[in-house]
Amino acid sequence: MKTVYITRRETFNAAHKLWNDNWSQEKNEEVFGRCSNANWHGHNFTLFVTVKGTPHPDTGFVINLKDLSVIIQKEVTEKLDHKNLNLDVPFLKGVLASTENVITAIWDRLIEPVRSHGGELVKLKLVETENNYVEYFGENEPF
Amino acid sequence: MKTVYITRRETFNAAHKLWNDNWSQEKNEEVFGRCSNANWHGHNFTLFVTVKGTPHPDTGFVINLKDLSVIIQKEVTEKLDHKNLNLDVPFLKGVLASTENVITAIWDRLIEPVRSHGGELVKLKLVETENNYVEYFGENEPF
Amino acid sequence: MKTVYITRRETFNAAHKLWNDNWSQEKNEEVFGRCSNANWHGHNFTLFVTVKGTPHPDTGFVINLKDLSVIIQKEVTEKLDHKNLNLDVPFLKGVLASTENVITAIWDRLIEPVRSHGGELVKLKLVETENNYVEYFGENEPF
Amino acid sequence: MKTVYITRRETFNAAHKLWNDNWSQEKNEEVFGRCSNANWHGHNFTLFVTVKGTPHPDTGFVINLKDLSVIIQKEVTEKLDHKNLNLDVPFLKGVLASTENVITAIWDRLIEPVRSHGGELVKLKLVETENNYVEYFGENEPF
Amino acid sequence: MKTVYITRRETFNAAHKLWNDNWSQEKNEEVFGRCSNANWHGHNFTLFVTVKGTPHPDTGFVINLKDLSVIIQKEVTEKLDHKNLNLDVPFLKGVLASTENVITAIWDRLIEPVRSHGGELVKLKLVETENNYVEYFGENEPF
Amino acid sequence: MKTVYITRRETFNAAHKLWNDNWSQEKNEEVFGRCSNANWHGHNFTLFVTVKGTPHPDTGFVINLKDLSVIIQKEVTEKLDHKNLNLDVPFLKGVLASTENVITAIWDRLIEPVRSHGGELVKLKLVETENNYVEYFGENEPF
Repeated sequence: MKTVYITRRETFNAAHKLWNDNWSQEKNEEVFGRCSNANWHGHNFTLFVTVKGTPHPDTGFVINLKDLSVIIQKEVTEKLDHKNLNLDVPFLKGVLASTENVITAIWDRLIEPVRSHGGELVKLKLVETENNYVEYFGENEPF
Repeated sequence: MKTVYITRRETFNAAHKLWNDNWSQEKNEEVFGRCSNANWHGHNFTLFVTVKGTPHPDTGFVINLKDLSVIIQKEVTEKLDHKNLNLDVPFLKGVLASTENVITAIWDRLIEPVRSHGGELVKLKLVETENNYVEYFGENEPF
Repeated sequence: MKTVYITRRETFNAAHKLWNDNWSQEKNEEVFGRCSNANWHGHNFTLFVTVKGTPHPDTGFVINLKDLSVIIQKEVTEKLDHKNLNLDVPFLKGVLASTENVITAIWDRLIEPVRSHGGELVKLKLVETENNYVEYFGENEPF
Repeated sequence: MKTVYITRRETFNAAHKLWNDNWSQEKNEEVFGRCSNANWHGHNFTLFVTVKGTPHPDTGFVINLKDLSVIIQKEVTEKLDHKNLNLDVPFLKGVLASTENVITAIWDRLIEPVRSHGGELVKLKLVETENNYVEYFGENEPF
Repeated sequence: MKTVYITRRETFNAAHKLWNDNWSQEKNEEVFGRCSNANWHGHNFTLFVTVKGTPHPDTGFVINLKDLSVIIQKEVTEKLDHKNLNLDVPFLKGVLASTENVITAIWDRLIEPVRSHGGELVKLKLVETENNYVEYFGENEPF
Repeated sequence: MKTVYITRRETFNAAHKLWNDNWSQEKNEEVFGRCSNANWHGHNFTLFVTVKGTPHPDTGFVINLKDLSVIIQKEVTEKLDHKNLNLDVPFLKGVLASTENVITAIWDRLIEPVRSHGGELVKLKLVETENNYVEYFGENEPF
């Protein structure tokens, strides 16, 4: 039985700022620089979702990409696209909206729905700009 | 004398929303859809600035790209990067922040400074997402 | 009144072959090389549709991109995506399926629907691979 | 001795369809959607081949990329480029032509030739569209 | 008769420096900055060659891309790839190796061979980095 | 405590050649082909630096990307950008300038400065052209 990893890309465009409520404006500016701008800024975010599994003999699929796409849209991108990550997203309430914190919150949204479709979520990659991205593997070994 | 066109790319990440103050929320949502989200959304914008000229015999340059980059940063990207296009930018005050309106406002910021460095601004391209962009040529023929 | 050019990207994945029915197999292979493979080959095609206009004072829009996207999908990509360009597409019947011929056929599908939405179609770009693309401007000057 | 991973990119453009001969047309359409189109569709496939090794003191090379490129072209891309994956490829006969099944078949073509050139094949990545790709690591740990 | 524009991409990797022999080292550094480094630097250059024409009824081709590719390789990229633009290229002898000057020199190499294959060279684009490129149209109107 | 991997991209444009001083010119040409050109060639190199860590509760950061960027620029790209990798770089003296050898030398420059900022360097990726890149993981497991 061969194990293959399949990845689906989805995108969302959102506003956010980096801001710690326990800090003064000066401290926020010192640490977060331009990212702390009071009136927000934004990005075209790109999310890569990787699922591990064995191709099914009937379909050749680890998971049907149409299903995976629907899961990601329903659980994640519909809720983040054209939103403010600090204000508009229930599952990010109280979270400092760094890409690191956003990716772990997205993981928690996806792991069960992917499992219930017979797949195993093993990797997320969230690209914020052409110059930076984060990856998260849950409790799996990174790869 | 050969005429060459040289283009410099610069980027800025900003928040905005599409909103007409003279309309109800329903009308705004009907026309602008998700782009009217009250709490903003955002993009990684990419700006391409094209200057026309004759390569100088001493330098081989239409315009020194370091100078062009400084002009664009000083006049445009410093003022738009990590900002809210609707709230934070003096030269966009009162402007409905569509890419069409942003690009023509950027043109007005660049045409004189480019000219004073011996170049002729002939084209701007502003990319909002991988799926859409606008171009503006001022009073020149498009190319 | 400022004239701005706005471009929307859409994609379709299709099979085709280059084949002239009036020629022998040898002649087809000589001229078209691997592109004449009897059992087809295929590409991820990317289509860029450019519309010219004046931003409307109420919206800042040359044309609403949602409308433009719907037009392109309805008239073009729905009919080409996951299809065989030689066999499955009524508006390409009898057309030798080169990118040059496909792009002019797409133009004829789009010009009226774009006009009826208040826009003026001025440019198409059809990318077949990272190494080649075609552009078409109808009866307009190229730009 | 330092272990470095080197990757070579090659491309091929091919037609295929997703189809299970044991199923009715209705069932095929239900599961595979547009990908089951009887007359095929196609893609620009991109293949990344990763080889692990220790840079040789005389060359600084894990493997000579010219050799690696020749292996990939001879064993894989020459046989897949401008072909129909379901009909034209001996090593894919009887294989449901999903990317998952294609990538494991490519692995079997490459592992020995890479080894005979002193390299160890450790990863393949096959990109079908900008929105999906698969990875395969044989019996190695994923990375 | 419909006029279509077709573009072929080719690449070359080369070393160069920006240097005016009539200037002191200080003046060269002042004007050209890091680009004047005595021991050279280099780039992955990407060249886009656009040919205008009417699709031929027998082939659907403005020009056979295989022929165009051979012309570009023979006349340009074979002579520039893995070379030093200041030292190794006969047709750039005595030319200050700015992208502006390189693109006009490439034009002179291509215009006749393209014409002799029935095409009309109308545009070159030479990309030096992701942040800058030049375009040249010879004596044609830019587009 | 969740472990997240964050990556920063930086670029440098440099000249180099592949050359073994102990070999004849013929042997160098045989092994390294065009890459052995006596007068150098060059590339736009892209470097991806990946740091592993736990997002800090106060910042949501594994490492402040501004700090990481400064480290990479100071230790690596300032010393390689617009340079000759064979001649101009103290930390590459005596090193055969293959990407494999360059990436391991870069690792040695970055591991301590990243650690002193509280991060753990776990992966480098160095892209030489669109067709090849190398990865290095030091003594860590690859991922």
